[in-house]
Amino acid sequence: KVNRALSSGMFVHVRQMLHQMACADVALLLESSPIRTRLVLWQMVDHDQQGEILEELPEDVKDALISQMSAESLAAATAGMDTDDLAYILRSLPDSVYQQVLVSMDSQDRARVEQALSYPDDTAGSLMNTDTVTIRPDVSVDVILRYLRLRGELPEATDTLYVVDKQDVLLGGLAITTLLTCDPNITIKKLMNRELEAIGVDMEDTKVSQLFERHDWISAPVVDDKGKLLGRITIDDVVDVIREDAEHSMLSMAGMEDDVDTFGPVFKSTLRRTLWLTVNLFAALLAASVSNMFEGTLEQFATIAILMTIVPSMGGVAGNQTLALVIRGLALGHISDSNARWLVGKELAIGFLNGLIWALLIYAVVWIWKDDSALALLISGAMLVNLTIAGLAGAAIPLLLKKLNIDPALAGGMALTTITDVVGLFAFLGLATLVLL
Amino acid sequence: KVNRALSSGMFVHVRQMLHQMACADVALLLESSPIRTRLVLWQMVDHDQQGEILEELPEDVKDALISQMSAESLAAATAGMDTDDLAYILRSLPDSVYQQVLVSMDSQDRARVEQALSYPDDTAGSLMNTDTVTIRPDVSVDVILRYLRLRGELPEATDTLYVVDKQDVLLGGLAITTLLTCDPNITIKKLMNRELEAIGVDMEDTKVSQLFERHDWISAPVVDDKGKLLGRITIDDVVDVIREDAEHSMLSMAGMEDDVDTFGPVFKSTLRRTLWLTVNLFAALLAASVSNMFEGTLEQFATIAILMTIVPSMGGVAGNQTLALVIRGLALGHISDSNARWLVGKELAIGFLNGLIWALLIYAVVWIWKDDSALALLISGAMLVNLTIAGLAGAAIPLLLKKLNIDPALAGGMALTTITDVVGLFAFLGLATLVLL
Ligand SMILES: [Mg+2]
Ligand SMILES: [Mg+2]
Ligand SMILES: [Mg+2]
Ligand SMILES: [Mg+2]
Ligand SMILES: [Mg+2]
Ligand SMILES: [Mg+2]
Ligand SMILES: [Mg+2]
Ligand SMILES: [Mg+2]
Ligand SMILES: [Mg+2]
Ligand SMILES: [Mg+2]
Ligand SMILES: [Mg+2]
Ligand SMILES: [Mg+2]
Ligand SMILES: [Mg+2]
Repeated sequence: KVNRALSSGMFVHVRQMLHQMACADVALLLESSPIRTRLVLWQMVDHDQQGEILEELPEDVKDALISQMSAESLAAATAGMDTDDLAYILRSLPDSVYQQVLVSMDSQDRARVEQALSYPDDTAGSLMNTDTVTIRPDVSVDVILRYLRLRGELPEATDTLYVVDKQDVLLGGLAITTLLTCDPNITIKKLMNRELEAIGVDMEDTKVSQLFERHDWISAPVVDDKGKLLGRITIDDVVDVIREDAEHSMLSMAGMEDDVDTFGPVFKSTLRRTLWLTVNLFAALLAASVSNMFEGTLEQFATIAILMTIVPSMGGVAGNQTLALVIRGLALGHISDSNARWLVGKELAIGFLNGLIWALLIYAVVWIWKDDSALALLISGAMLVNLTIAGLAGAAIPLLLKKLNIDPALAGGMALTTITDVVGLFAFLGLATLVLL
Repeated sequence: KVNRALSSGMFVHVRQMLHQMACADVALLLESSPIRTRLVLWQMVDHDQQGEILEELPEDVKDALISQMSAESLAAATAGMDTDDLAYILRSLPDSVYQQVLVSMDSQDRARVEQALSYPDDTAGSLMNTDTVTIRPDVSVDVILRYLRLRGELPEATDTLYVVDKQDVLLGGLAITTLLTCDPNITIKKLMNRELEAIGVDMEDTKVSQLFERHDWISAPVVDDKGKLLGRITIDDVVDVIREDAEHSMLSMAGMEDDVDTFGPVFKSTLRRTLWLTVNLFAALLAASVSNMFEGTLEQFATIAILMTIVPSMGGVAGNQTLALVIRGLALGHISDSNARWLVGKELAIGFLNGLIWALLIYAVVWIWKDDSALALLISGAMLVNLTIAGLAGAAIPLLLKKLNIDPALAGGMALTTITDVVGLFAFLGLATLVLL
């Protein structure tokens, strides 16, 4: 609906709709939009919503939007943001903008964030917020109840109050449900859970997520090596770590970085996929050079037999990258009828670009290795055809399977490999038959 | 430590250690143990701990343990279990045991679970628990506070009380943190959140997890199509759905089911991986039959050139299955120094079994297709060698990479493909050179 209003130029209307949507939903809309629409939409978002929306976006999308904002509007957007998200945003800024944003913040925010920035990425410290509610062990429940009433609203996902001594050393925890159900005259000391497990500030974030999963925690306290309470970690941020780690495994098995953006720009996406293809080319060439050692066995036109595995293999890898991305997008609910055609078009374009790059490269390699420009030309032609088809098939197959109610993750890989193998061999051997015979 | 005590036969000691461990930690230990150790350990677990431990185990492991238990001990173990977990366990029982367990339950549990069993798997209904705390809109906060004190302990992960009318229709929610901080004389009606989003009982579990992730919920109410409150879903079970779905994507891209058990028995594991390999053989044969159309181009010993892609391709798929499993195990923290060698041994065994199966099959196919038993023998020999090496490499590579502090998910796939391609071609062409020349 927003897209329709946007394309018909009803900007005032779009601005109004965005204003009425929940921040999480605006984030989802931005994340699922092509790069250009995304920037246009971002201009129309209310300034006081921008901070909360940024918190919800994945890294790649966040980075793209931040790079378009001035230091002032960034400082305004980040005011009141959770420490962990604020630290993340500052970490990703270029040095000059970073200093400007720090200067435009109030001194309390600045102190908070400078502390957070001192913890390395991917540790408990970087996941932590400082919004703990602490109490003393020697007062009664009644006192705490009155204190809370005076204090007003509690931070999100507060399920436990932390009991600390004068040096802020963590002594235990008190569930707020216990506060509601226990005798008000009892002292905290007698009531508190002394077994409360605390997380060391240096613990790896993946380890943190495993603990949360295993113990079904909603929040957990973070302490330094002397047991001093530094902050707490909440399940919502842990869920993000779990999701990130899972995506990382899946995507990197197909040779991609985990913060890759399904709806990012074509050229950048193409570049980000080159590493894996480079490695695969070397692997395929190594395989071919093994066949080369048995040239006597393969006899006449042996060169063709030696080279014939390269084109299918490159197509397989390229197609799998697209496939993994589209399957993840479907899993996260990012792909709908409205953006599916756009996505197929984008992947086709990346496939064609990839095709050009690797056709040129294989041309050079084969020309130098075999000193045969006709052969080099035909293998590079086959490469261009196969990588283009691989991009198209990698995007279209999972969407088609989804429509047919077949699990794209299960059936997609094999369907794709079959297509890239058949098209690759057809293109290469077909061209060889035409040109060389 | 438990393993050491177990292998030295100190059973009393092991029983004591298990008794002192948290249920979640016993579950982790069981999950990370080879099948035989697991069954021995299970015998030693306290009977009143068994229910809670079962709740924490993944499906495959749970099924294996349940199948070893009598109906009486199952009924005892499941008493007081969460509805969702209880329903899951009953669903997986054979009919006769199922009836026995139902009969040995008390009538309240039976009613609860029969209701839960009426919802299809993978919907909000099957994730739901009935442990909601409900209140009426027209009373004051003070009344609620007194009611809660009388009621005693609240269910785990209770962050919201649900406001319902006399027909149990959901009117809104009241955060328990609000109860602690607001004026006690105000009525619930004025305080409650009327915008509280409810989940339809038929909603897909994946959709539920997306909502929780997007809105950072800790719990959410479940309603029927008339808006009547049926129960609630909590974040801990949603985290399990997120993890399951992520694993499903990753593993099924390598051709495996998502509840596959990293430490299950060898024969069962081998059988469960055949589907993908069957499909891949057809794909490879299709590719080879394409080359076959260009026999004229390939000339002498063309048959070898035509067949030479099959062995590497089968090795690649088999190795990738092992790789995906080991990488997931590492990600979940299931693989440690104590079980790594066992795992490599198991995967080597599966590789060898796979090798035998597919060597026989490819022998038959090539013998019938090409009517050449020498050629059939040499391709099946190469297949056996390559699939065995693929199993070994698929397990050893990620463990080695992990030791070297290199991300196994990223580097493992390519390293594996290279090994399976090179070994596959070497074995096939090497044998061909020896036998045919
Ligand atoms: Mg990160
Ligand atoms: Mg991480
Ligand atoms: Mg859990
Ligand atoms: Mg639980
Ligand atoms: Mg946060
Ligand atoms: Mg967050
Ligand atoms: Mg399930
Ligand atoms: Mg599911
Ligand atoms: Mg979230
Ligand atoms: Mg939040
Ligand atoms: Mg539960
Ligand atoms: Mg559960
Ligand atoms: Mg291949």
